Amino acid sequence: MKPLQALRAYARGPWREDLVAAAVVSVLLIPQSLAYALLAGLPAEVGIYASLLPLLAYALLGSSPYLGVGPVAIVALMVAQATAAAPAGYSASQAALVLAAESALLMAAAAALRLDALAALMSVPVLHGFETGATLAIALSQLPALLGSPAQGSELPALLASAAGSGWRWHAPTLGFGLAAVALLLLGRRLLGGLWARLAPLIVLLLTLGVAWAVQAQGLGVPLVGALPALHPRLQWPPLDPALWLALLPGALLIALIAYVSSLVVAEALARRRGERVDPRRELMGLAGANLAAAFSAGMPVAGSFSRSALLYDAGSRSRMSSVMAALLMGAAALSLAPALAWLPRSVLAATILVAVLSGLQWRPYLEAWRYARAEGLLMLAVTLLVLNVSVAAALGLGVLGSIALLLQRTARPHVALVGRVPGTEHYRNVDRHEVEILPEVMGLRIDESLLFTNARSLADVVQAQLTQHPGTRRVVLQMSPVNGIDYSGLEALRELHESLRRQGLRLDLSELKGPVLDRLRAAGWERWFQGQVHLSHHQGMTAGQAQDWVSP
Amino acid sequence: MKPLQALRAYARGPWREDLVAAAVVSVLLIPQSLAYALLAGLPAEVGIYASLLPLLAYALLGSSPYLGVGPVAIVALMVAQATAAAPAGYSASQAALVLAAESALLMAAAAALRLDALAALMSVPVLHGFETGATLAIALSQLPALLGSPAQGSELPALLASAAGSGWRWHAPTLGFGLAAVALLLLGRRLLGGLWARLAPLIVLLLTLGVAWAVQAQGLGVPLVGALPALHPRLQWPPLDPALWLALLPGALLIALIAYVSSLVVAEALARRRGERVDPRRELMGLAGANLAAAFSAGMPVAGSFSRSALLYDAGSRSRMSSVMAALLMGAAALSLAPALAWLPRSVLAATILVAVLSGLQWRPYLEAWRYARAEGLLMLAVTLLVLNVSVAAALGLGVLGSIALLLQRTARPHVALVGRVPGTEHYRNVDRHEVEILPEVMGLRIDESLLFTNARSLADVVQAQLTQHPGTRRVVLQMSPVNGIDYSGLEALRELHESLRRQGLRLDLSELKGPVLDRLRAAGWERWFQGQVHLSHHQGMTAGQAQDWVSP
Repeated sequence: MKPLQALRAYARGPWREDLVAAAVVSVLLIPQSLAYALLAGLPAEVGIYASLLPLLAYALLGSSPYLGVGPVAIVALMVAQATAAAPAGYSASQAALVLAAESALLMAAAAALRLDALAALMSVPVLHGFETGATLAIALSQLPALLGSPAQGSELPALLASAAGSGWRWHAPTLGFGLAAVALLLLGRRLLGGLWARLAPLIVLLLTLGVAWAVQAQGLGVPLVGALPALHPRLQWPPLDPALWLALLPGALLIALIAYVSSLVVAEALARRRGERVDPRRELMGLAGANLAAAFSAGMPVAGSFSRSALLYDAGSRSRMSSVMAALLMGAAALSLAPALAWLPRSVLAATILVAVLSGLQWRPYLEAWRYARAEGLLMLAVTLLVLNVSVAAALGLGVLGSIALLLQRTARPHVALVGRVPGTEHYRNVDRHEVEILPEVMGLRIDESLLFTNARSLADVVQAQLTQHPGTRRVVLQMSPVNGIDYSGLEALRELHESLRRQGLRLDLSELKGPVLDRLRAAGWERWFQGQVHLSHHQGMTAGQAQDWVSP
Repeated sequence: MKPLQALRAYARGPWREDLVAAAVVSVLLIPQSLAYALLAGLPAEVGIYASLLPLLAYALLGSSPYLGVGPVAIVALMVAQATAAAPAGYSASQAALVLAAESALLMAAAAALRLDALAALMSVPVLHGFETGATLAIALSQLPALLGSPAQGSELPALLASAAGSGWRWHAPTLGFGLAAVALLLLGRRLLGGLWARLAPLIVLLLTLGVAWAVQAQGLGVPLVGALPALHPRLQWPPLDPALWLALLPGALLIALIAYVSSLVVAEALARRRGERVDPRRELMGLAGANLAAAFSAGMPVAGSFSRSALLYDAGSRSRMSSVMAALLMGAAALSLAPALAWLPRSVLAATILVAVLSGLQWRPYLEAWRYARAEGLLMLAVTLLVLNVSVAAALGLGVLGSIALLLQRTARPHVALVGRVPGTEHYRNVDRHEVEILPEVMGLRIDESLLFTNARSLADVVQAQLTQHPGTRRVVLQMSPVNGIDYSGLEALRELHESLRRQGLRLDLSELKGPVLDRLRAAGWERWFQGQVHLSHHQGMTAGQAQDWVSP
């Protein structure tokens, strides 16, 4: 379909739904954008800038019709940690621009090199553990603003030290505004349904803003958001000092990874609701474009946000045009509403963040993962604790390494089953678990793993152990249906097993070898040493040229 | 069997074979021990010390009756590189003692923590690539001694720079001795068989030693081994400076890994010849004991050597007592023969090392690995080049990371097959590869991989893609025989697939679930959300309550 035709089809069709969705989303996003910019340690208006041009860039390059891109809480937390690495002389805003630019370039490079599959390194335990930890860290970082305390920090030790350093001070009127906002938000969430529930934060903001103005809260010492500088969106280069770029690179790498993976998870979850699919590479391109746009328009690193996306989805978005409209509407709204926002108490903004992020907390996965696999449950917990007490980098590092270690351990110790025939069928199962019958001279073995370097050294050992228990064996048939691949180490192990059995006067046959596996063996010229037979089914392998004197094992 | 009884049984039985083996091995090992000590950049007599007490310790703690423990070429090369990290003020000999002590402690810790399985990280491509690279590096390091050049180094760039710095000098009489030795060794290898071939190096050494004495080679400027200091084996603590231990720890870690894995490979290869098995943990204990003994008796890090072990095996060793006898005999021989060895030209010693290590080179695995799996062939080559041009640490690092990356890639992109029935059987195979028949309303799918975090995100996608091609489907039966495990991420993916199919009005059934996998699913309470059926065989799953109107796909 040509662009013009596409535009015409769009004008006839879903634009109305998109416009409604955009209008709803744009007003809701203004306070959220301010709040996440403050969370990242940046001036509040940066959040507005990051919600304009990046949305247009994503709409142009991305693929999901529902993904709402903009400042998100977890990335904001990571920006706050990462900008600390900037050399002296650079402001946090400048560092944030470089982080956005670097993340964008890393994502574009990953898309070009087809590294989108690296997202798979974030296992569910790592991702959930990380998101929970980050959410708690975000909540912690908002406590001082809610309490009117001068303390700051998002990791537990830093926050406690800072609070102790300031003599555990707090400010009653500030806390009053904050608690009132929390109460109203929770009430709204409970009493209202559907879109009204989503509008509740806006209503609460307007309400508290009015009260703050009426009681002249500034005079009571309540910190307010304050007047935003006049907004004038403009394009400009981020700082180009190599030393600055180098210092921020590790942080940018983590931000790119988390921004991509968390956006992908959101896009996939929403696509799945309609039986649709997501193109991971296009998502990567879309996010790269959005972050590049942020870097050039005085913004901060952005990602797909679950709350923004759910808003778009629930408000009836049909295409990525709704993001474009939202950006335009929001630009207009921000220009006109910004002066009023100056009266908003900071503790109210902290309250909206607290309620928003804490409502997403899920503890059930910890219990489920623990029940399903102790090690994975522990990994999830460890990642959470590291985010809270050490740093995002340490948590993700341990998480990825831990996941890989568990995978290696899994392939290293394969389950081995002596299999026999389920009577009256051609189906073979583990003799220890099912009522089956075996042939005394033919040993059917199933090794439940691909033959890989992690287990190659134990293959001959495992078979030898079974042979010691069944001295009458004259032929061994390996059922290869669980063997999904054989690497070069596995090939050597198979050759050694074949040789070891041949020395003992035993023949090694294989059955149910998968097509791709057999292709590779043939290409490597295995017929030069392999003297056994390859049978299509294990039943054929067991009964080939054999008297069928089945016995119980 | 009690110790005394065991000793009596031994006195009646295999002691004669062991004594013969020990006598042969002990004389052969003296020059080799000197040579490897020099290769490690240590005084020659250190090689003798490392061949005495460590053998006794291994005999006490190890398990293999054939493994010959002592100084080996590859470990000597690693010691030469590692001792460079010692702080100023410590001799290479002192650093070598600390390396031996640290390797021993690391091995003992690994045995205690049951980390012997970490040996699996060394895949065949990495191990072969490393051994070939190390062998070439050893050969390179011997060239200056053979040529009578003052150059030194084992990595190519360092050696070339050093040779250029010395003006490419060489010394004709020294080279003459060296080339004569090489020629005689190659000739002996070609003309002699069996044990005589193994004795050839000793004969060549005695011969050239005699000539060097007769022509007074020292006067010609030929570097000789020189008088060894009087040997007096003694026990003493290695230096205990924490700074020294910390500086050498990375080197010791690599030495422990390589010493263990290369010893294990030798022990397993020899055990396999007799259908016996090796206990990896006891090997680890044995090597730990041997290295600790080396550290306390003025030795150097030791490992199981293929040439020593093959000698013991061929000479008819029956038990680890032969190692004990060899140590005793060698101690006696070294005391009496040492003065004569002073006349041995160093170029002859270099020649014996060159011929010994180069004869073990195998190029065929590179070709085989390349043919079988490009990536693994490239990895093997890259590891070799890194050993030669950069360092042992870089090569092993890249090798282990590369192997893991290939494993992740393998599990990340599972092969998926639509399966149909082989007519007249209950056996199901890929419709693209076999003449099979299918049921139009029941889709049988086989996903050839465990459900793991690396592929969890693509499971629903893959099934959805198949459904798009077969719109008439009303039930999906996943054949789970290739699924050897499901981690927590895989469990979530299965739940999401189930949910996504349910939304589309499709039922998800599973067949041929393995016992251990089903146990885990049940323990996690999957019956709370799983509404399909689990069938024993895929045939039962396909035909359950179904009109059997088989058609060709």
